[in-house]
Amino acid sequence: MSAGNDVWGDRTSGGPPRPFFGSRWTPRPAHVRELDPGSGLPAGFRAAGVAAAIKPSGNPDVGLLICDSPQPVSAARFTATATPAAPVLVSRERCRLDALHAVLANSGCANAATGRRGLDDAAKTQGAAAMALGVAPEEVALGSTGGISWYLPVDSMLKGILAASSQLRPDGDAAFQQAIQTTDAFEKRANLEVELASGTVRLTAQCKGAGMISPNFATMLCFVQTDAALAPDTADLLLGVCVKRSFDRCSVDGQLSTNDTALLMCSGASGVSVAPESEDELRFGEALDALLRTLAIMMVADGEGARRIARVLVRGGHAEGVEMVARAIANSPLVKTALHSADPNWGRIIQAAGGALSAPAARDWFATPLAVDLSIEGIQVCSAGAAISHDEDALAQAVARTEVEYEITLPGEGAETEVFFSDLSHEYVTVNADYTT
Amino acid sequence: MSAGNDVWGDRTSGGPPRPFFGSRWTPRPAHVRELDPGSGLPAGFRAAGVAAAIKPSGNPDVGLLICDSPQPVSAARFTATATPAAPVLVSRERCRLDALHAVLANSGCANAATGRRGLDDAAKTQGAAAMALGVAPEEVALGSTGGISWYLPVDSMLKGILAASSQLRPDGDAAFQQAIQTTDAFEKRANLEVELASGTVRLTAQCKGAGMISPNFATMLCFVQTDAALAPDTADLLLGVCVKRSFDRCSVDGQLSTNDTALLMCSGASGVSVAPESEDELRFGEALDALLRTLAIMMVADGEGARRIARVLVRGGHAEGVEMVARAIANSPLVKTALHSADPNWGRIIQAAGGALSAPAARDWFATPLAVDLSIEGIQVCSAGAAISHDEDALAQAVARTEVEYEITLPGEGAETEVFFSDLSHEYVTVNADYTT
Repeated sequence: MSAGNDVWGDRTSGGPPRPFFGSRWTPRPAHVRELDPGSGLPAGFRAAGVAAAIKPSGNPDVGLLICDSPQPVSAARFTATATPAAPVLVSRERCRLDALHAVLANSGCANAATGRRGLDDAAKTQGAAAMALGVAPEEVALGSTGGISWYLPVDSMLKGILAASSQLRPDGDAAFQQAIQTTDAFEKRANLEVELASGTVRLTAQCKGAGMISPNFATMLCFVQTDAALAPDTADLLLGVCVKRSFDRCSVDGQLSTNDTALLMCSGASGVSVAPESEDELRFGEALDALLRTLAIMMVADGEGARRIARVLVRGGHAEGVEMVARAIANSPLVKTALHSADPNWGRIIQAAGGALSAPAARDWFATPLAVDLSIEGIQVCSAGAAISHDEDALAQAVARTEVEYEITLPGEGAETEVFFSDLSHEYVTVNADYTT
Repeated sequence: MSAGNDVWGDRTSGGPPRPFFGSRWTPRPAHVRELDPGSGLPAGFRAAGVAAAIKPSGNPDVGLLICDSPQPVSAARFTATATPAAPVLVSRERCRLDALHAVLANSGCANAATGRRGLDDAAKTQGAAAMALGVAPEEVALGSTGGISWYLPVDSMLKGILAASSQLRPDGDAAFQQAIQTTDAFEKRANLEVELASGTVRLTAQCKGAGMISPNFATMLCFVQTDAALAPDTADLLLGVCVKRSFDRCSVDGQLSTNDTALLMCSGASGVSVAPESEDELRFGEALDALLRTLAIMMVADGEGARRIARVLVRGGHAEGVEMVARAIANSPLVKTALHSADPNWGRIIQAAGGALSAPAARDWFATPLAVDLSIEGIQVCSAGAAISHDEDALAQAVARTEVEYEITLPGEGAETEVFFSDLSHEYVTVNADYTT
């Protein structure tokens, strides 16, 4: 499962890649500092991860995370899919999402397409975790990742919950991370310090996902903790904005998961408050934004078989059209195979843009033939829909880099979007076709 | 470029596969007979194909087809892309599409993303073909396939037109077919006889396309000829309906081409008229429908690297939702890699369906969680969104066949659609990533 992408250096070590802010697309904000991966969770949090035989491999598969604050504040975002997994439904509909005390996460089974029984199974594990942790069931969020269509092995889960609840530690984030991973080639975990005007706070995250998807394991999960004190509305606002700018902007293969979950939990244990509409809200928001965008790009870089990652930036006079073009390019197997082989075959990008705007409604947004401009790494190759002469050697070098940027300009002004995506390789097919159940 | 799909038997011979109606999804209508591949074009048509050095390989790349009838009748359909190639724009806007006399087709260059110069180049070749054939320029339709972003080598085209115009023959359809092919692993060509109440007519077709796409060659072209006499409205109606049920229903990788073109030309030389709303219109329509659907399935079966082909059938209470689900499944790299490896991993189909309906608007069409039923080759595996027990051995055998059928039922009634698609294999990546410019 190793890959040639070298943004985050050696992936084979298994530990979190250093430096965390390794992509040119998400530079480290000046007021954010990377801490040692072993520096543990922010004050007020403990976590654990254990092996409970849910994964056939025997690897860790049940994680618990608790916020010991008497009045924790939290916020959550979930997959938009029409076929949400049981843990998503239970968390979304049966939890106090603004005041979560704990997270129960598992890998090895997504508990998706499991109907009424899946909901019952999820509720049982939620109840067991609540009992083991001494909190109310509605204060325990659930996150599952693994095969779709299989029922949750509840007995194994209960044993795992019991074992994990006795191993909760302030530096349990590494073990928790292990328990939520599936095919991830490297850890997506951060230990940061954020300097605010009112004081210094900690910000940590554990995230899994080889893009949106994995062989049978179709999920991204992201758990973020801070010892800053945020009001529920502030936590919700910041998480919402940052998720839109990060996980919502990346794609390995355009496949939306049944289980995607992002949680932000705030213990307030630092005594530093992030007040609404303050300078500190801006600074904390910037740190959260850089954190989640980096994690999103990491997931793309860990996209199955990924060798290169790309950013497509689309501007123009119609927001929906701009979005459709960006997605179409990011999800085009032709663009992705060209990215993989460092082929400056930009006709495929024009083809994808044209295909995206083929619906009759799109005729009202942009005139046909589309007057599209295209630059690759700053080298313009297409103007108003027609090829223009350019430095072909420079282009060949540019598309062979680890990170490649495409810039599309459509007629009009006012809308702009970006999507991060990975290439399509033999290894993607190998992972998804050859090594399946 | 050989593939394991065996619907049409040995593909390495290069000739048209026998029998033409080889897929269980398009049985031969009783009043349609397959003729010998060497039996030539219907009365009133001549064709030729020559090598004009547009393809670096030296293979045939310029084709001419003429209808010698003094009053030919025709109909045409083109790609819906917002970035149409020059030949599409010229044909659509400058031709008498209901009275075409000739087709000039080339492979090796798509003349797409070539702007004003591309239009001028296309017009020059149209004029040259008209002169060589003794018809008006607006009676010559153009079809190009090949690399996007390269300018048409006009001088080579003119030489090719001159050479081809001296080689036009009633049995030139095989040579014409060769001239329009690019990466096709086998010929998509038909020589049929159709028994109508008023007499017997001929129906032939030459078609190219390894799905919608090819490495640098992003096109499907389909040219159909008959010696039946059809009114322009009838030709247009029948072609429109049949294209919607064939080429519009297939996908190799969801990539819409800049050049897709389908033309029906009627010489009337048989003296047999197909009158509007007659029994013969129905019979002729059935034959055309079976012809185009078979060609569409052939393109899917010839999808780059394809080993298996599938049909997804979706029913439910909302037409747009049903269509989105069918397309999402057909274009899901997870579903396609599972199809490739004969993996009965149907959770991916549920995931794709849920992802397709993730837009807020879809909440008005179907309730969430989605009460989706799924059967694979008649074996039901999912009921109202939840896994149900089934014969796993039978399922494993079913998904290992050459043609696999998925049947999805969403809540409600009234809408139904189908999409034919191919699997995603290592060879797809090889063709599109490794063997490019």
